[in-house]
Amino acid sequence: MRVRKVKNVNEKLKQYDDILIDDPTIYKGKWNEVFKNDNPIYLEIGMGKGKFINETAKLNPNINYIGLEKVSSIVCKSLVIFSEDKKDNLKYICNDAAFLKDMFQDNEVKKIYLNFSDPWPKTRHEKRRLTSPKFLQNMLDILDGDIEFKTDNRSLFEYSLMEFNRLGLEICELSLNLHEDKPDCITTEYEDKFVSRGNVIYYVRIKQKEQN
Amino acid sequence: MRVRKVKNVNEKLKQYDDILIDDPTIYKGKWNEVFKNDNPIYLEIGMGKGKFINETAKLNPNINYIGLEKVSSIVCKSLVIFSEDKKDNLKYICNDAAFLKDMFQDNEVKKIYLNFSDPWPKTRHEKRRLTSPKFLQNMLDILDGDIEFKTDNRSLFEYSLMEFNRLGLEICELSLNLHEDKPDCITTEYEDKFVSRGNVIYYVRIKQKEQN
Repeated sequence: MRVRKVKNVNEKLKQYDDILIDDPTIYKGKWNEVFKNDNPIYLEIGMGKGKFINETAKLNPNINYIGLEKVSSIVCKSLVIFSEDKKDNLKYICNDAAFLKDMFQDNEVKKIYLNFSDPWPKTRHEKRRLTSPKFLQNMLDILDGDIEFKTDNRSLFEYSLMEFNRLGLEICELSLNLHEDKPDCITTEYEDKFVSRGNVIYYVRIKQKEQN
Repeated sequence: MRVRKVKNVNEKLKQYDDILIDDPTIYKGKWNEVFKNDNPIYLEIGMGKGKFINETAKLNPNINYIGLEKVSSIVCKSLVIFSEDKKDNLKYICNDAAFLKDMFQDNEVKKIYLNFSDPWPKTRHEKRRLTSPKFLQNMLDILDGDIEFKTDNRSLFEYSLMEFNRLGLEICELSLNLHEDKPDCITTEYEDKFVSRGNVIYYVRIKQKEQN
């Protein structure tokens, strides 16, 4: 996501320390202390401006949501937009998905959302794709549940399906036109823009085969 | 494929006994005797009027092709269209895919093509889809190679990907817009019609994971 830089962003982020977790590594294995309950934890990796996770969190008060976004200016914009409508079941982390395992214990997360991840189309950037083997393996380690992935990028979707297949993951749900199959699904900011242009949205839900 | 019935079709088919194999069960395990060489055997299941397999066979004289089609009137039409341009490396079978294992020995076939198979959209007809478990298992038994599957039917493609995944098959190639990725691929009669309407063609090539 290209975004204009917010000036003095680190100063501004400090105002939101009730939502934004400054040092998430402290809570590895004890996110229930942050939320003060034992509800399941759903994590969105690359939440962007956070429309999807805010709407989803509002609809599901008995699930704890964490929005991860590495670009601090985007996190700041999201906080400006959504912090007034504060939700006890939603926290933000401003960090890189490469450090997932420093922030979460194995099996601590019940669901991961990957919405419109950066496609990194060049082959030499494959390792930066969130559905490349290393990122995916880290996600599977912290996960005791499923991953929901949606994108309008055909190449990224094809690549991701082949990676899921290579890792022996189970496809639980698949749609090659999500908005035809689920017209009322909660969308991201990008998704609204893409769909208004007539783009098809691809969707898949996967999990490890060993799990029930 | 809906097709007008050909009158006295069985009589007419007898004229083409150099191409159409009357009793394919005789050649189970010895198709090399039919072709008089040991070239690999590629099988199209549901060849329709046979444009794809005729063009493919013409381009690849060192591969033996067999076109299977269960509707005798369609086989007859295909023979009328293509029999003048006879190819030594192409034979037809008029039979049902349910009897694959009576016609071919395990591992006798090197590639199977499934082009625009009947989608049988109703759930109660799932068992009739060529990519349903029983048909697929029969194909895998006679196969020592890969399956190439293309369709414009989104639901059938989604269903098939999930079945391939469930059977633990390896996805070797995947395209969610074949004609954008391979504009020069050999097409079927149906494919030309669908593409001219602007339909997307889905394509996947799969094989058993144990194979090299």
